[in-house]
Amino acid sequence: MKTKHVVDLTDLSHKELMEIIHLANEIKARPEDYMDACRGKILSTLFYEPSTRTQMSFQTAMLRLGGKIIGFDNPQNSSVAKGESLKDTITVIGGYADIIAIRHPMEGTAAAAAMYSPVPIVNAGDGGHLHPTQTLTDVVTLYNEAGRLDNLCIGLCGDLKNGRTVHSLIKTMTSFPNNRFILISTPELSVPQYIKDIINASQCNYTEVSSLVEAIPELDVLYMTRIQRERFSSEEEYRKQDGVFVLDKPKLKLAKKSMKILHPLPRVDEIDVEVDYDDRAKYFIQTVYGMYGRMALILKMLEGSRREFSPRVMPTHHYHCCNKRCITQTEKYLPAIFTEAGGDMLLCRYCDGRTLI
Amino acid sequence: MKTKHVVDLTDLSHKELMEIIHLANEIKARPEDYMDACRGKILSTLFYEPSTRTQMSFQTAMLRLGGKIIGFDNPQNSSVAKGESLKDTITVIGGYADIIAIRHPMEGTAAAAAMYSPVPIVNAGDGGHLHPTQTLTDVVTLYNEAGRLDNLCIGLCGDLKNGRTVHSLIKTMTSFPNNRFILISTPELSVPQYIKDIINASQCNYTEVSSLVEAIPELDVLYMTRIQRERFSSEEEYRKQDGVFVLDKPKLKLAKKSMKILHPLPRVDEIDVEVDYDDRAKYFIQTVYGMYGRMALILKMLEGSRREFSPRVMPTHHYHCCNKRCITQTEKYLPAIFTEAGGDMLLCRYCDGRTLI
Amino acid sequence: MKTKHVVDLTDLSHKELMEIIHLANEIKARPEDYMDACRGKILSTLFYEPSTRTQMSFQTAMLRLGGKIIGFDNPQNSSVAKGESLKDTITVIGGYADIIAIRHPMEGTAAAAAMYSPVPIVNAGDGGHLHPTQTLTDVVTLYNEAGRLDNLCIGLCGDLKNGRTVHSLIKTMTSFPNNRFILISTPELSVPQYIKDIINASQCNYTEVSSLVEAIPELDVLYMTRIQRERFSSEEEYRKQDGVFVLDKPKLKLAKKSMKILHPLPRVDEIDVEVDYDDRAKYFIQTVYGMYGRMALILKMLEGSRREFSPRVMPTHHYHCCNKRCITQTEKYLPAIFTEAGGDMLLCRYCDGRTLI
Repeated sequence: MKTKHVVDLTDLSHKELMEIIHLANEIKARPEDYMDACRGKILSTLFYEPSTRTQMSFQTAMLRLGGKIIGFDNPQNSSVAKGESLKDTITVIGGYADIIAIRHPMEGTAAAAAMYSPVPIVNAGDGGHLHPTQTLTDVVTLYNEAGRLDNLCIGLCGDLKNGRTVHSLIKTMTSFPNNRFILISTPELSVPQYIKDIINASQCNYTEVSSLVEAIPELDVLYMTRIQRERFSSEEEYRKQDGVFVLDKPKLKLAKKSMKILHPLPRVDEIDVEVDYDDRAKYFIQTVYGMYGRMALILKMLEGSRREFSPRVMPTHHYHCCNKRCITQTEKYLPAIFTEAGGDMLLCRYCDGRTLI
Repeated sequence: MKTKHVVDLTDLSHKELMEIIHLANEIKARPEDYMDACRGKILSTLFYEPSTRTQMSFQTAMLRLGGKIIGFDNPQNSSVAKGESLKDTITVIGGYADIIAIRHPMEGTAAAAAMYSPVPIVNAGDGGHLHPTQTLTDVVTLYNEAGRLDNLCIGLCGDLKNGRTVHSLIKTMTSFPNNRFILISTPELSVPQYIKDIINASQCNYTEVSSLVEAIPELDVLYMTRIQRERFSSEEEYRKQDGVFVLDKPKLKLAKKSMKILHPLPRVDEIDVEVDYDDRAKYFIQTVYGMYGRMALILKMLEGSRREFSPRVMPTHHYHCCNKRCITQTEKYLPAIFTEAGGDMLLCRYCDGRTLI
Repeated sequence: MKTKHVVDLTDLSHKELMEIIHLANEIKARPEDYMDACRGKILSTLFYEPSTRTQMSFQTAMLRLGGKIIGFDNPQNSSVAKGESLKDTITVIGGYADIIAIRHPMEGTAAAAAMYSPVPIVNAGDGGHLHPTQTLTDVVTLYNEAGRLDNLCIGLCGDLKNGRTVHSLIKTMTSFPNNRFILISTPELSVPQYIKDIINASQCNYTEVSSLVEAIPELDVLYMTRIQRERFSSEEEYRKQDGVFVLDKPKLKLAKKSMKILHPLPRVDEIDVEVDYDDRAKYFIQTVYGMYGRMALILKMLEGSRREFSPRVMPTHHYHCCNKRCITQTEKYLPAIFTEAGGDMLLCRYCDGRTLI
């Protein structure tokens, strides 16, 4: 694979993405052929915030390829607690491991890590910013369960404003022709404008609705997400909406027989337990596709990878990113790198945040 | 093995238990023959409460069979902290791993997990309820060190009321003929009536005494357990008993040369350190038998195991279990399943607790 | 290897140390030849205080030798929290694992563990006392990067009073001829007298200076360490010294082109990030040498090792060690073992602390 690091799924070319999907399916069909594919290789999972599920999925993927795992899931126990910089940690772990999966609460961390790592970096989530292997999971699931990645009517339901998995899935699916997105949420929790711009610029289109019942009959795919109670403007508002965005058996009766239900998990109560027993529920098998997707990704990334440091990157501007959750706020040595976004606007290379000059 | 899940040791037939004991001995004799027995298989240890010792024993067992391990030991770091149900966690992890060892503070959790898991579940402790691999450890130790599992005079000393390992060992040993139990404790901490009923219904018998000195001369086996200070009615009562249930060199002088001393560990001060240097002390080698016992159990459980979900279980009654520590108290979707225990009494399928209609 | 346990680097004979250095280089040159060298063996990392970096280095070393790993990094989660003694923990884990790396906040813990362990013990740090694999790391780095272990002018800069890595490195390097130590610190943080005595008794010599600028031109090696702010007598004193012991580009201009910069890591700000891009910076590659050093050490220690308990050690004196951080303060069953250090002085076998009779 030409791509060294996967910070966002868009780091993969369309061709690379399709190769990974096909490889995932090949591994699923003949897992014993891949049992020693990563023999002698080590994956390090550096989880600066705990996320057992994602970590276990990466670990299982590597172990099922015959590789080994090291890592931590708690910054308190690590050298970080002694004030070590991300740069130093990545440099050292890059000397131990052959590939690194990193998760961090600050946005842009994986991009920063990629600047200093001699081995491939996979972003396992950087704050509310990106989580490409979740989207890979979704796409492998759709390819297998819906049978195609184009010409789909995809409903996305819940908190569409803050859900990075939703944004990332939309971005990826717009690269396939004739997909139609039904965006199901309250006006306050609707998809940000820049995502709508991406859809408009593609061969796809979207509709916004405020009720799951209204949208469900025409869907090929229903992608459910959780709405956190804190997201509502008031307790009264929350109560009013209670149930409107919950999938249960009565609502499911209105859906096509062939509709596929996905969810990034963990769920709380936005899908009723009764739905689990319906054949259309694919959110558990989805995690298994996620494991195969990660196996394929790790395998492709290690293929032909050599341990070498990237050249030093110099700052492009004399400004600071003004996103409070950007990794440049805490790791001060990081060079300021922006692309000019038109007008007086700069786009931060790490967190994709906008800064006005 | 016919049995899919091992929630209690009684889930194993007598024949299966003997096969596991013999297999444990075979592995101990020729460990190199089993180095790759579980190649390509993954054990997940889901420890909802920390118990490093038990977790490491399971992990070592799997690693020495050539298998791999994933898991967590801290619910705070897991999806559970985000409100995920046991059912969802088990379903997802059952897609990653080939066998699951679960430990949980609530009673009945392993039985609940077994209802939803596509892969074999081993109970690694569910609150004060069951801990079958500890009893397996004890039985493998007795078979090897005492040379037989029948015709033994077995002293059990300490807190016999709250000690699940004591109850479970007695239940298992009553299935072998002519064992005699000497129950050594204060009246307040004596064995519950239902355990006495089990002995009475078997080919075994028991005596209750209140002093270790009195009991020790006739014992073939002495099974020591810890009495927690909080179990005594008062500090004065604790002081009065202090030392009565402690095994030291003077008491050991009264015992047979062939007596075997067991303890589930960790010990605090109920066995004096001097006793460690006596040949009759078997509590350390006991942990090694435990490792071989777990290796044999894992191997047997994986043998011929297929990844498949059990059929959905429907509730049997419209009542709720009234045991405050039962897993049904916190996992509300679990179907209420009871067996009628005579009169107005229902027996909970998860925690074995009694509920009056 | 004749040596069973490595509590201090001085446990290794000069010949054994050189064999390990050469083996480390051989593994580095042909890692694939050692991929299965520890197949079927288990390393247990018992970390009674967290130190992710050291733990990951040991784990990586074992995994790259084809071995497996178990362990803990948090005493709260272990049987220790239930009051288990070090002796019991070591005895049990010694039944599971083939080699144990132990880290503990109390001084003398590794020596105590070695008394009870049936398998080899490596000290991974016992309080402020010893940390032999860090020194092994330093020595392997010097051998490769400086090209020799004798006739070196070695500057040691920072907190030389409290730095165990500094003391241990000096002790080891005095066993090679004609090394010269330039000790760079404030008078308050200078090397303890007993270390100066060791240098004086060897074929080496030392000079003390109070400024890095003054010392740097003649150095072949610069070993940087961190000075914790709390070590200064006052905030005013700290400010006055601020920068004097910091390595930056201007100071580096005064150094030889061939000087090698080492640091035990993690660093905070005692080496400016700009220095990382200078070819003389060897502190990152040093961690890789550390991994190969640990691989060689583990391999040598397992070679011909048999699982057997050491004979019981009896106390030599009726005194107690008066070092408040000595492991004998908390593990009361440990036999008091002293060597007579002349006069009324006893030297504790565990922590090397002095007790006046």
